[in-house]
Amino acid sequence: MSADDPRLRLARAYLSRVAEPPAPALHRLVTELGAVAAADQVHRGDVPPPVSRETEARRTAFLPREDLAAAEALNARLLIPEDPDWPSWQFSSFAAAAAQGAAEAVPPLALWVRGEAPLAELVERAVAIVGSRSATPYGETIATELGIGLAELGVTVVSGAAMGIDGAAHRGAIIGNGPTVAVVACGLDIPYPAGHVGLLRRIVSHGGLILSEYPPGVQPAKHRFLVRNRLIAALGGGTVVVEAGIRSGATNTAAHTRTLGRPLMAVPGPVNSAMSVGCLALLRSGHAVPVGTAAQVIEASGRIGIDLSDTPEGPRRETDGLEPHALRVHEALPERSGLSAEEVAVESGLPLSRVRGLLPALELAGLAQRGDEGWHRLRANR
Amino acid sequence: MSADDPRLRLARAYLSRVAEPPAPALHRLVTELGAVAAADQVHRGDVPPPVSRETEARRTAFLPREDLAAAEALNARLLIPEDPDWPSWQFSSFAAAAAQGAAEAVPPLALWVRGEAPLAELVERAVAIVGSRSATPYGETIATELGIGLAELGVTVVSGAAMGIDGAAHRGAIIGNGPTVAVVACGLDIPYPAGHVGLLRRIVSHGGLILSEYPPGVQPAKHRFLVRNRLIAALGGGTVVVEAGIRSGATNTAAHTRTLGRPLMAVPGPVNSAMSVGCLALLRSGHAVPVGTAAQVIEASGRIGIDLSDTPEGPRRETDGLEPHALRVHEALPERSGLSAEEVAVESGLPLSRVRGLLPALELAGLAQRGDEGWHRLRANR
Repeated sequence: MSADDPRLRLARAYLSRVAEPPAPALHRLVTELGAVAAADQVHRGDVPPPVSRETEARRTAFLPREDLAAAEALNARLLIPEDPDWPSWQFSSFAAAAAQGAAEAVPPLALWVRGEAPLAELVERAVAIVGSRSATPYGETIATELGIGLAELGVTVVSGAAMGIDGAAHRGAIIGNGPTVAVVACGLDIPYPAGHVGLLRRIVSHGGLILSEYPPGVQPAKHRFLVRNRLIAALGGGTVVVEAGIRSGATNTAAHTRTLGRPLMAVPGPVNSAMSVGCLALLRSGHAVPVGTAAQVIEASGRIGIDLSDTPEGPRRETDGLEPHALRVHEALPERSGLSAEEVAVESGLPLSRVRGLLPALELAGLAQRGDEGWHRLRANR
Repeated sequence: MSADDPRLRLARAYLSRVAEPPAPALHRLVTELGAVAAADQVHRGDVPPPVSRETEARRTAFLPREDLAAAEALNARLLIPEDPDWPSWQFSSFAAAAAQGAAEAVPPLALWVRGEAPLAELVERAVAIVGSRSATPYGETIATELGIGLAELGVTVVSGAAMGIDGAAHRGAIIGNGPTVAVVACGLDIPYPAGHVGLLRRIVSHGGLILSEYPPGVQPAKHRFLVRNRLIAALGGGTVVVEAGIRSGATNTAAHTRTLGRPLMAVPGPVNSAMSVGCLALLRSGHAVPVGTAAQVIEASGRIGIDLSDTPEGPRRETDGLEPHALRVHEALPERSGLSAEEVAVESGLPLSRVRGLLPALELAGLAQRGDEGWHRLRANR
């Protein structure tokens, strides 16, 4: 069935409300039968008990057509796994984690989205920045600086739009002129948090996205924040905890990050600050790597594969740290004159979005430079 | 030759000035011939070229008898390896490091000492706390708190008496009512640093020690601080770097600590503080463990062998974390009534100083309690 078939989107809209996420049994049924047949059986009540337990309460209580209309009125849309910009690679980690027994490791059945940008491309190089709502000025400063630095290096900042660290990270990304993705824990029509209504608007107007697993009208609730956190962890190539009390939502996101096998980072802070206690615990446990700058975050999250460390051991070739894609881009660059990113994409055979992500990283690593005539290769001085 | 033989102390006094430490060739000669014969040959100029290079300039330029008299006038003494309170165990690490190629890993030929306490006993449970002279209020607060906490847990604080972190650590130990050891980089008669003359006096009057490898009159110098740092690292069971710039004396002490195979710890701080950059680098390299409290320092330095971590994995016996000596003390304790530390020493067959160190640690671990009638065993509730 094509993603353009309206029955598919309608079925996914239905599925996104009929069960409270994460709904592992319903997800299995959808994987088995496809969304349309699964939605139909759920609606009729013709499902095995595990699915029934997840869906019985709401199965005839609403009309998905109204949800889609409400979303349209909000300038929002329903993104479904059958769409090309669904972040399949990112969400595939849930299956691996579930296979190892993580019961909550269930991908969303659909995502309600505000903003025009293609999600899959935005999160191709992305880092989650999370932290306490009651952040200190220190924490907010660092979150903003990390947001700016990552944006300037072409990395998308993913966070939860909460007060404190989340907001500072989104703001930093906007300052750094990069798209940022906010995953919220309520319907897109709910003005939450009230203090961030303006920020949410700016996120969208600056090329970013607001995502929610919840259809319009769904109110934020404590368990929804925790469930939402798994999506933040999944959409980031790694997670940075900037400030966290000893038991905070951020340490919950950290746990999801570990479950999904993603790199976990923590920003050290004053050991006598209650807001740094959670970070210290993550560092002491050995589960998180200490980071203080955007370059260190990229190095630790490792997604882009360029080793930015300035302490190579022993003699090494300048391109030793490059992962295959970065190496292909590097090799596509001329030594003199210059190429546009589009020409490099043609030359390297890699998608333009990937090339656009890798070129600034190569520049940072001292292996490429943007001149008046475009990009050319640099011989790094090691 | 007995340590009481005056020729021995005179020879060591001579050796302590004739070469600028560390003097590996002279040290080898002394190990080979003994101090008296070695001093005699050096004085006559009858030594192989490596030793001659280290000693020729000063071999007849002074009278060691005057140095000993000057020390006596200062209420100081010369501690020599033949004395029972020489910290042989601590300095034995130098031989191991030298065997692995560390050229500077040379123990002192003697130590000039102010204070009455027996050095070997003081450093049986000791931690070095070091850091920047231009510390921030944050760093000084943490250094003081660590000093207090370690002293209260019966751990001796070793440091360098410098302004900033060193001074704060010594002061903390004094507040915590524990002995503290300052290793200085000049003669004991030199009032250095000028701002710490009162602190140095208090260290001694509170049962601590001032140590120097340098005889009276020797001025502080940059290379002497670096050479001195190896003694701080050797006398601590582990080293905590509280604050450090990217290249500071503290990172030099950290390097010595690693060379000697001792646990290295660093206190995290604000990542945007220049004084925490050195600590962040140590943490990011993986060479240092992050610590924020005295209990975490003891856990990480591991000398006393009791695991203070409150997150045991899986079922475990209450005494699983105890190293052999601690276990012997624990087993020597009665379940009812009580024993004095002296009686526990008899019962366990361990030196009283060791028992005195381990009992408070067992108490902290919830495995022992001091009552009106003395010490008794506790069954910890895990």
